[in-house]
Amino acid sequence: MLCPDLKPELSVPLYQQLYAYIKEEIHLGHLTPGSKLPSKRSLANFLNISLNTVTDAYNQLVDEGYLKSLERKGYFVENFDLLYKPKNRPKKWDQEEKRKKVTYDFSFNTIDEGLFPYSLWRKAYREAVEKGTDFLNDPDPQGGWSLRQEIAHYLYSSRGVNVHPSQIVISAGTEFLFFLINQMVSPQSIFAVENPGYERLSHIFKAGDQKFTPIGLDRWGMRTDLLEESGASIACVTPSHQFPTGCIMPLSRRQDLLAWAGKAPGRYIVEDDYDSEFRYSGRPIPSLKSMDVGDRVIYMGSFSKSISPSLRISYMVLPQNLKEEYLERLTVFKCPVSAASQRALEIFIQKGNFEKHLNRMRNHYRRKRETLVQALKEAFPQAKIGGEEAGLHLLLYLDKKLPEKDLVDYLQERSFALRGLYEFRLDKLTSPKPCLVLGFGRLLEEDIEKSVLALKEAILNFKEDL
Amino acid sequence: MLCPDLKPELSVPLYQQLYAYIKEEIHLGHLTPGSKLPSKRSLANFLNISLNTVTDAYNQLVDEGYLKSLERKGYFVENFDLLYKPKNRPKKWDQEEKRKKVTYDFSFNTIDEGLFPYSLWRKAYREAVEKGTDFLNDPDPQGGWSLRQEIAHYLYSSRGVNVHPSQIVISAGTEFLFFLINQMVSPQSIFAVENPGYERLSHIFKAGDQKFTPIGLDRWGMRTDLLEESGASIACVTPSHQFPTGCIMPLSRRQDLLAWAGKAPGRYIVEDDYDSEFRYSGRPIPSLKSMDVGDRVIYMGSFSKSISPSLRISYMVLPQNLKEEYLERLTVFKCPVSAASQRALEIFIQKGNFEKHLNRMRNHYRRKRETLVQALKEAFPQAKIGGEEAGLHLLLYLDKKLPEKDLVDYLQERSFALRGLYEFRLDKLTSPKPCLVLGFGRLLEEDIEKSVLALKEAILNFKEDL
Repeated sequence: MLCPDLKPELSVPLYQQLYAYIKEEIHLGHLTPGSKLPSKRSLANFLNISLNTVTDAYNQLVDEGYLKSLERKGYFVENFDLLYKPKNRPKKWDQEEKRKKVTYDFSFNTIDEGLFPYSLWRKAYREAVEKGTDFLNDPDPQGGWSLRQEIAHYLYSSRGVNVHPSQIVISAGTEFLFFLINQMVSPQSIFAVENPGYERLSHIFKAGDQKFTPIGLDRWGMRTDLLEESGASIACVTPSHQFPTGCIMPLSRRQDLLAWAGKAPGRYIVEDDYDSEFRYSGRPIPSLKSMDVGDRVIYMGSFSKSISPSLRISYMVLPQNLKEEYLERLTVFKCPVSAASQRALEIFIQKGNFEKHLNRMRNHYRRKRETLVQALKEAFPQAKIGGEEAGLHLLLYLDKKLPEKDLVDYLQERSFALRGLYEFRLDKLTSPKPCLVLGFGRLLEEDIEKSVLALKEAILNFKEDL
Repeated sequence: MLCPDLKPELSVPLYQQLYAYIKEEIHLGHLTPGSKLPSKRSLANFLNISLNTVTDAYNQLVDEGYLKSLERKGYFVENFDLLYKPKNRPKKWDQEEKRKKVTYDFSFNTIDEGLFPYSLWRKAYREAVEKGTDFLNDPDPQGGWSLRQEIAHYLYSSRGVNVHPSQIVISAGTEFLFFLINQMVSPQSIFAVENPGYERLSHIFKAGDQKFTPIGLDRWGMRTDLLEESGASIACVTPSHQFPTGCIMPLSRRQDLLAWAGKAPGRYIVEDDYDSEFRYSGRPIPSLKSMDVGDRVIYMGSFSKSISPSLRISYMVLPQNLKEEYLERLTVFKCPVSAASQRALEIFIQKGNFEKHLNRMRNHYRRKRETLVQALKEAFPQAKIGGEEAGLHLLLYLDKKLPEKDLVDYLQERSFALRGLYEFRLDKLTSPKPCLVLGFGRLLEEDIEKSVLALKEAILNFKEDL
């Protein structure tokens, strides 16, 4: 007979206690598949509890597949092998890799967590996960229509880009957008990438067996003369804040680039507007896409900087003919972003919370940038600061000749999260005078001065150690 | 002067009304960049409101970047071009594509939405989006460690697979898992796919420029003799419920497959366990991975059937040597699943809700399956039913000679969501006697009989129309 130790004084209802007891007995093998349970009445009598309590416990067990009820015969333990039955949890596994300890956080790909609108996000998710909102359906391969509408609206009002939501494809990061682009363009295409530039692009092209060629920069961005010579047909650029040098491409170079694209069929420009939300000074320069009368620009945007890199939502705007290619052949690839995340983002934008958040963060980052620039000027009066007009990182060009790679290694080993400019060159060529890429996304305002002083001291120590 | 129409009787606080008014004036261009605002005191006097109200409104505007405060000078409208300023929302765009109207929903890739645990999911997301939970950090390329622990634990207790979380890679769907596998295996590898089989696999291989070859099935699954002849080195199989025929691979064929893999270096088996959670009868057969002493099986799982296809979370378990390949070269590819979704799933499993949900759904789907089988037997007494021991779909082999493709087209045009078996053959070869793939994931229990009768009638009409 079943002998549960029921405790009416607990806050857990009696039927739940009985349910848990019987489930445990099944898991432990004390009740075997096919065995008959006592009738509800006799168990209620035996345990001196109400019939309802037993009925509720049995019903839940039937509902979860532990028992089956056969009419006029009674309750039986289900064929147990079919059930997912957690055994005792194995002890936790040891994690092999440990994150590096960081004391001075100049990482460039992080955001400020203190100001994140946690409660608004929770609300957005709560609304997103609602019966009847269609959130359980496999999302449209391009991403949900209503989120695409919000993005189109945002692009129109903030970037001057007039696009139709049907041109937008939502995905989970640069690699997946390029995975799709690779399928749309001619297989002979050669991609031109900025050098120095976003290091992950070359990995992505290698993985996709896609030919690519690095193109040098001058102070206005990718050199169009070299681009023309290279034979490349798809130029990947970051005009609003070149990564990593931070230069903002002037109008004239933008026009040159568009002219280049117009010269031959199959030429495209991929405009990665990765941190255009954060521009602090200077006149705004229209995005390439907003000037794109020839329809040759694939515009890429992301919410990694403006909301969080952990959100994994990015998107692209396709020119008309690529959109047709996409619709014809590529809708078999599902949108990797969960419907809940899509809906939550849509709600967040729709309610005006994205706008508020952006404006607040821009202001906040501007203050941090000013504090950082000030601290750097004091600590390194001879050094040059670059790329600080926008974005969440800047460059510190030291004026001393030092082995760049050794210096960066030295700093990284001493709990500085920072990068050297040479790391973003395809050939990893170092400069005689080192240049450091300093992010301030996650760096706390109150830590800036301290961190800059620590950086100064570490560099001095490095020089002495030489 | 500013003349807001403040309404103390509203529930919106006065300072919010003032804030909204000034913001609107800025957006409308009535207040231009650089223009000075009235001092807080004079505005308070003019509007006959408290100084605090004005201070709160100004502070929020400063905080959001609309105003800047210059010491001893007052408040000025920020350089407005830098702000994201939604104009009047453009009218909604028309959506080009419309979803097909479905009256009889035999779709195979859907789940039952009625029983979805909405409130538990909302709770899980609420907990996931919490300050200090590390949810804003870029997730580990393999997916969060603690979610991988939960998956390892689940695989151990439900599938007899003993894996270390470090072997698990979490991603957003089959295409992305294969994108990674393609980079890990030798470029000369040829993938063997089941024929008939999961139609999207061939698209994925084509997109990745990966060679693949279809291998025929017998009633035990992929034919190992044909596999051996084919020269393929990576066999992609669905042993627990072959897609779409539904056959369950017996132990002997599993052993043959493992023996094939052991015969030459570089051979692997991809075991796609896509709906193994739902098995209704018969003895359980161990997964290939649990028998994989030679470490040649890449195990793939997904939460598309067990939770929702819209969740977009899948994973694979890598053999030791592929894990090393992965760690060496492929961690540059970020995990496409948002940290919030990962955390929510982890919480959902950890609290035992996944187990409960699975057991409840298995029971529910079993009932629907029984109702469907019964209804089909009555409506089509001569037909054969196949693949019904597991999963969320079954096959109906009609006993009449009919043009298969025409019949399927006819039914699809008449609001039946269903597929023909021939659609899953690589060569789209039809059979003299049609076979229909009937899913019952989303089909409501109370609609089953009606839908089967409608199917019968539609097939009769089709015959008459011939």
